[in-house]
Amino acid sequence: MLKLEHLGFAVSNLEEANELYTRLLGSGPYKHESVPAEKVTTSFFKVGQVKLELLEATTEDSAIAGFIQKRGEGLHHVAFEVQDIFQESARLRKQGFEILYPEPRQGADNKLVNFVHPKSAGGVLIELCQEIQ
Amino acid sequence: MLKLEHLGFAVSNLEEANELYTRLLGSGPYKHESVPAEKVTTSFFKVGQVKLELLEATTEDSAIAGFIQKRGEGLHHVAFEVQDIFQESARLRKQGFEILYPEPRQGADNKLVNFVHPKSAGGVLIELCQEIQ
Repeated sequence: MLKLEHLGFAVSNLEEANELYTRLLGSGPYKHESVPAEKVTTSFFKVGQVKLELLEATTEDSAIAGFIQKRGEGLHHVAFEVQDIFQESARLRKQGFEILYPEPRQGADNKLVNFVHPKSAGGVLIELCQEIQ
Repeated sequence: MLKLEHLGFAVSNLEEANELYTRLLGSGPYKHESVPAEKVTTSFFKVGQVKLELLEATTEDSAIAGFIQKRGEGLHHVAFEVQDIFQESARLRKQGFEILYPEPRQGADNKLVNFVHPKSAGGVLIELCQEIQ
């Protein structure tokens, strides 16, 4: 794990959440992006070196919709940048962690991503991400 | 908000959680600390510039015990370093956020801390912190 790359927050309404986080952080989102594969639209804020990603579900069967239905709005995942996502996934599997996808997938923000299931990681959904060169 | 200072994770058993997070992150905690005022014992990990704080309740009426009873283990708070915690608390109050304590308190890691209530911040418990000089 190289560094904390971003935090992902599940929100019910991206427009309202953008307004709320802008008031909280004192500055607005620097970009918006849709990720059809994950059934979300997102916005990104920056605080120092770390990005905050707000995620709104675009369909009812989106993982974000399920999360909000179960737990309400709030922090959804913690994303760490890794040097080699294939190698890091293999290391974590060997350590007994449940890695969600057999192979990394294309995520938001030009990244390959995979996830450590919260069941195996103290209740926290961990994203591993690596910039696509 | 200057930067993301740390993430706080509620854990049931600090010793077991230390072992889990060491396997996850690839390196162990660099310090332990008790915070009697918050009724917790804590350990700290570092990933890049950001600290991860694990919190175990020391009493049944600790906020961490209540959190785990309600939501299970997982991410408990997101802490931002601020330049002037008095000024930032006043700014956020003016913006309509509910700030937990009337005045900042001494927290872990030699810091003055205050909190934004998750009700007013999209379901996220936000800690404001400022190093004590």
